[in-house]
Amino acid sequence: MAGRNVFYAQSGGVTAVINASAAGLFDTIESYPDTFGQIYAGKNGILGALREELIEVSAMSAEARAGLSQTPGGAFGSCRYKLKSPNERPEQYARLLDVFRAHDIGYFFYNGGGDSQDTAHKVSTFTREQGFPVQCIGIPKTIDNDLPFTDACPGFGSVAKYVATSIREAALDVESMAESSTKVFILEVMGRHAGWIAGASGLSKADGHLAPQIILFPERVFDPEDFLKTVDAVVARDGFCAIVASEGIKNADGQFLAETGHRDAFGHAQLGGVASTLAQLVQSRLGLKYHYAIADYLQRAARHIASQTDVDQAYALGAHAARLAEAGRTAVMPIIQRLSDTPYQWALDSVELAQVANVERTMPESFITADGYGITEAARRYFLPLIQGEAFPPFHDGLPRYVRVEYTFAPKRLPAFNV
Amino acid sequence: MAGRNVFYAQSGGVTAVINASAAGLFDTIESYPDTFGQIYAGKNGILGALREELIEVSAMSAEARAGLSQTPGGAFGSCRYKLKSPNERPEQYARLLDVFRAHDIGYFFYNGGGDSQDTAHKVSTFTREQGFPVQCIGIPKTIDNDLPFTDACPGFGSVAKYVATSIREAALDVESMAESSTKVFILEVMGRHAGWIAGASGLSKADGHLAPQIILFPERVFDPEDFLKTVDAVVARDGFCAIVASEGIKNADGQFLAETGHRDAFGHAQLGGVASTLAQLVQSRLGLKYHYAIADYLQRAARHIASQTDVDQAYALGAHAARLAEAGRTAVMPIIQRLSDTPYQWALDSVELAQVANVERTMPESFITADGYGITEAARRYFLPLIQGEAFPPFHDGLPRYVRVEYTFAPKRLPAFNV
Repeated sequence: MAGRNVFYAQSGGVTAVINASAAGLFDTIESYPDTFGQIYAGKNGILGALREELIEVSAMSAEARAGLSQTPGGAFGSCRYKLKSPNERPEQYARLLDVFRAHDIGYFFYNGGGDSQDTAHKVSTFTREQGFPVQCIGIPKTIDNDLPFTDACPGFGSVAKYVATSIREAALDVESMAESSTKVFILEVMGRHAGWIAGASGLSKADGHLAPQIILFPERVFDPEDFLKTVDAVVARDGFCAIVASEGIKNADGQFLAETGHRDAFGHAQLGGVASTLAQLVQSRLGLKYHYAIADYLQRAARHIASQTDVDQAYALGAHAARLAEAGRTAVMPIIQRLSDTPYQWALDSVELAQVANVERTMPESFITADGYGITEAARRYFLPLIQGEAFPPFHDGLPRYVRVEYTFAPKRLPAFNV
Repeated sequence: MAGRNVFYAQSGGVTAVINASAAGLFDTIESYPDTFGQIYAGKNGILGALREELIEVSAMSAEARAGLSQTPGGAFGSCRYKLKSPNERPEQYARLLDVFRAHDIGYFFYNGGGDSQDTAHKVSTFTREQGFPVQCIGIPKTIDNDLPFTDACPGFGSVAKYVATSIREAALDVESMAESSTKVFILEVMGRHAGWIAGASGLSKADGHLAPQIILFPERVFDPEDFLKTVDAVVARDGFCAIVASEGIKNADGQFLAETGHRDAFGHAQLGGVASTLAQLVQSRLGLKYHYAIADYLQRAARHIASQTDVDQAYALGAHAARLAEAGRTAVMPIIQRLSDTPYQWALDSVELAQVANVERTMPESFITADGYGITEAARRYFLPLIQGEAFPPFHDGLPRYVRVEYTFAPKRLPAFNV
């Protein structure tokens, strides 16, 4: 006899490997047919639960299921929508409970970052208090790599591999033309609060490669004069300077660099302009020719250069979430535990959501070199295992073959709800 | 008895596959030991000839030779430096001849775009007139794909594969979050005069993928009102809109869009801002949340996602250049001749440099759809073969293993020359 049904939702910014977690979860759930019933995925995350838009995972084509772990983005849709507490918005929790009851949901898997883990925790408590206990398991995911306890967050390793590869490649280009062309190249990467991604780009600087010679971390106050002096010295030494800048760097006044200096024709501050701000500074003060790239979503969607380690961990965490539920656990999150750096060995474990919720893991101070522009050996030891292995997707007609899921919805059983 | 020596130089903007042409050239030259003597590569292109900075190819490590065709950028350095005509700068040509005489150079291979082919032509004529005939062979190279006669220019196919892959990936990300987050995504790509690269991104729109829904070509006048109307309609239909914008798009006044609107804090026009200009337009007029990426050098250095077809053609053109020289030809350029689209079949041929020099191949009008925002079936037939096959480089420690050439210079035999 099949058990209660399963609800899975993707939350927040998507990654190159979040669908691998879904694949690991689904595959493992199906291996316990006595414990779990139907699997539903929320369309656009938790909004799908509130609206009773439940995608039937069993109706997915064999091709879509097979390609799921190789496809970036959120195959079922994600959302930026945070449930408030049951006290603030009791009707939302009541609705969630109604939907869970109507579809006999006994298991809620929430695949997201810190906010989502907090929500999963609240739902676990609320449903138990209401006499319809739903086992809530968080599945970690975030390119920001800021969830505590787990060695890394799925999605991060692939971004790390992408940015390190990209700066290595672009630097070879710049270096070969620097004498008569561009001398300073800037790659802007994500990371509003922490320099995990910017830091990982430092892995490029190995095997004789010189770049990036400068990394700008949000953990360090941006000092224009010191920066310019350093750029000048690097160009004098190497002939060129490749810079990786975190979008979140701030000046001494605590202002985002992206919001300083540039204004559009209407006088509005221009956002997202760290790279162009730095470039203008380099040109106006040092008179050096520059180019810049902004990786933006390319970095977190680049499944074609995903880390096999990251894909493996994403899948394993999804699978472990299913096993935790099968073992009767609730309000927990599976994590990766690092056993050793070289060779990289890791195991699965879990932590209570109460410990996870809203705790942000910052990058250790010991990861940044004394001058503030590079990464230390400790950082390399941490980052290096996370980018190992190439998980190339299958290709068709010269491009990655990614799947798009055709949604089959479970019939609605409730009146509409105004989210 | 070995023949006269060989001089090879890389010129202009480098690509992901220019070193594959060098590898094809060197390998083939070495297969004719009776015809060719030593191979020298100019450090930083033609500047290396003028300065008598000749890198000894025979001194390269076995590892560097083996990795050459898998490494992006210009392994010997390139330059943006155009020789004027012998009438304008006779001392430059005289110097070139001195260096060629001093090192018994009988063969000059110039790996570059239109300007370089023009230079190779002039050097061929000049050296013959001066009684020291040097056989000059151009080897095509340019991501701009604007050289005439050849089916494609080495470098272009790999950029095409990169941009089509990138917009497909980023669009999956955007689509999955569009309801509650970013609705419009813009990827800015290279192409100041022609839309070859932007057009190739249209290959992403296959196998059920929706993006890019809008491509902005430099061949079309940018009409803000029509653009906004189209973005609005696409978002209404698909929920999101992915745009690929060529850096070279212009408004009705013939002004680069990148130079309109934005000014920095000092009132200077901000360059390279097509994506941000479009984004501000979308936000201010449609109120839609946007993100944008600027691929910049990442696109032309992305050897990790190079097209095997492109790598093969780059290598083959280098090899054919050597065979042309061996056959006694001068002032010619090897080209790719397309024999059929499906399956893609191609052959090597050659054209006279006199016919090539300073002729720019524009993208056919028939490649752009009537609305101006997409590519036609004719365009797909042309582009598709060029991105076929994945030429993944070897990886080490999670990153592409690219070689860096240690330069061993031939002893100088002449006094210094002021370039």
